[in-house]
Amino acid sequence: MVDTLKDLYPSRTIKPTAMLERLDPVVYGGEYGPLSRIQLDSYRDNGFLFFPSFFSADEVAPLVSELQRLCRQPGIARQEGVITEPASEEIRSIFEVHKRSAVFHDLCRHPRILPMAEQLLGSDVYIHQSRINYKPGFEGKGFDWHSDFETWHTEDGMPYMRAVSCSIILTDNTEFNGPLMLIPGSHKYFVPCVGETPEDNFRSSLKQQRLGVPDKHSLRRLIRQGGGIQAPKGAAGSLLLFECNTLHGSNANMSPDPRSNVFFVYNSVRNAPRRPYAASKPRPGFLAEREDFTPLTSR
Amino acid sequence: MVDTLKDLYPSRTIKPTAMLERLDPVVYGGEYGPLSRIQLDSYRDNGFLFFPSFFSADEVAPLVSELQRLCRQPGIARQEGVITEPASEEIRSIFEVHKRSAVFHDLCRHPRILPMAEQLLGSDVYIHQSRINYKPGFEGKGFDWHSDFETWHTEDGMPYMRAVSCSIILTDNTEFNGPLMLIPGSHKYFVPCVGETPEDNFRSSLKQQRLGVPDKHSLRRLIRQGGGIQAPKGAAGSLLLFECNTLHGSNANMSPDPRSNVFFVYNSVRNAPRRPYAASKPRPGFLAEREDFTPLTSR
Repeated sequence: MVDTLKDLYPSRTIKPTAMLERLDPVVYGGEYGPLSRIQLDSYRDNGFLFFPSFFSADEVAPLVSELQRLCRQPGIARQEGVITEPASEEIRSIFEVHKRSAVFHDLCRHPRILPMAEQLLGSDVYIHQSRINYKPGFEGKGFDWHSDFETWHTEDGMPYMRAVSCSIILTDNTEFNGPLMLIPGSHKYFVPCVGETPEDNFRSSLKQQRLGVPDKHSLRRLIRQGGGIQAPKGAAGSLLLFECNTLHGSNANMSPDPRSNVFFVYNSVRNAPRRPYAASKPRPGFLAEREDFTPLTSR
Repeated sequence: MVDTLKDLYPSRTIKPTAMLERLDPVVYGGEYGPLSRIQLDSYRDNGFLFFPSFFSADEVAPLVSELQRLCRQPGIARQEGVITEPASEEIRSIFEVHKRSAVFHDLCRHPRILPMAEQLLGSDVYIHQSRINYKPGFEGKGFDWHSDFETWHTEDGMPYMRAVSCSIILTDNTEFNGPLMLIPGSHKYFVPCVGETPEDNFRSSLKQQRLGVPDKHSLRRLIRQGGGIQAPKGAAGSLLLFECNTLHGSNANMSPDPRSNVFFVYNSVRNAPRRPYAASKPRPGFLAEREDFTPLTSR
């Protein structure tokens, strides 16, 4: 059967293309849920919501232990779904932690988190991608500005902007350890990026973003429009929800300590991936769920 | 004649070596001068002094114009003493600006700046190195932690820690445009760095620091001892004095705007360079003055 779906968000173009207005809603659900009207409005306007100290120190401790346990497993650096720093063998990310670990399996279904994702996406949700990022001291390199949706759409086949990322900070964040930076309001536009997607692009792009980087003119305009860059910082246990199309990046970790977090991408069950829009084949399953779209349930 | 001077600060070693205590004074001059006792004590303890809005907006404007004029000269990117960004042809730094430009010639002799350098170094001074850094928006990459003295000693032959750098910020500095980060108190130690200095190391090291990078263990210890990293930020016209051995680094410029500054290294006339300590030949004159040690005078 021919897939006749029109690509609403074309990227990896040959020539530079002007940025497009977003066609999808930002908030899909109604007022029924844990997020207040003010929070929903803020998410709609800015493309993210930050909750300082969402979890207490007591709640964070077992998450940190579990992250350390996973990073220290013998032979972990050579397993599929495990990414090391470009310059060393240190762990940068471990993917599919909601399948590898009972602690993170439960965390993505947490009764204070899952309902927020369901409310924002207005439907049942499943995990498109999960990972822990370790970002070791002095070693963790930065990431250029990018939209996750641009990659998930072009390389994974996610059709619409109907996903939300949840990052739970497991170490105190400061201006020195490479906190996430976001461009408020950038989720309202889609910036087509120049460049053909090579096969197995994911291998290099996980270490350093090269493809899918918006042009400087669009970035400049979006930063001006959004009133500047923001970098929410807080204690371990702080939580950030950010829309799948919000432009974000980060700098290197110049501090001696790791900047660790756990990261869940909730996707609407009505937004399951189709064929990739601009890649010869889909990325491996640890980067993009393509088999199991069973709705998550809090237990 | 054989140079029998012992190398007090050996670096570029084959094996990792423990860090050494500083043998030189930090403040050479007395109380006679523009800096107060409190300021001198702070410089002695921390290794730097920050003066927010040292110059007014009216005083900064002609400096910014001159920086832009120098960067826009036709063919400038291919001139000796001009460094471009690793990933593009954009200007990163122009050296010897105190010789290229009447404005910067006068600025390094400014009656509010030169006497501070003379007081800290306790003698007449000359310019060991000068430059403007442009650090373009989205392009300016960061620099790993390093001591300038480590390079000036091993590659330029500067014998003692008796130099001070003066950075005048020509654009507002924020946490997003890669401000200078410093480790307070790190100037009291010398961290020998591992690695042989190849010929013409300066060509790559000006674009990205690789040699002369302290080991992580020493960095961690110095950051803990100093109570953490500091990144003085302020409006255009702010001025930073930092000791030649204070460890510093910076992150990439994630903002759309340049992060520009002008940078003068004042060296004591009693500390003129000899032969390099750990390099086969001295670096080019635009990086390290080796001919003209005439004391600067305010006019």
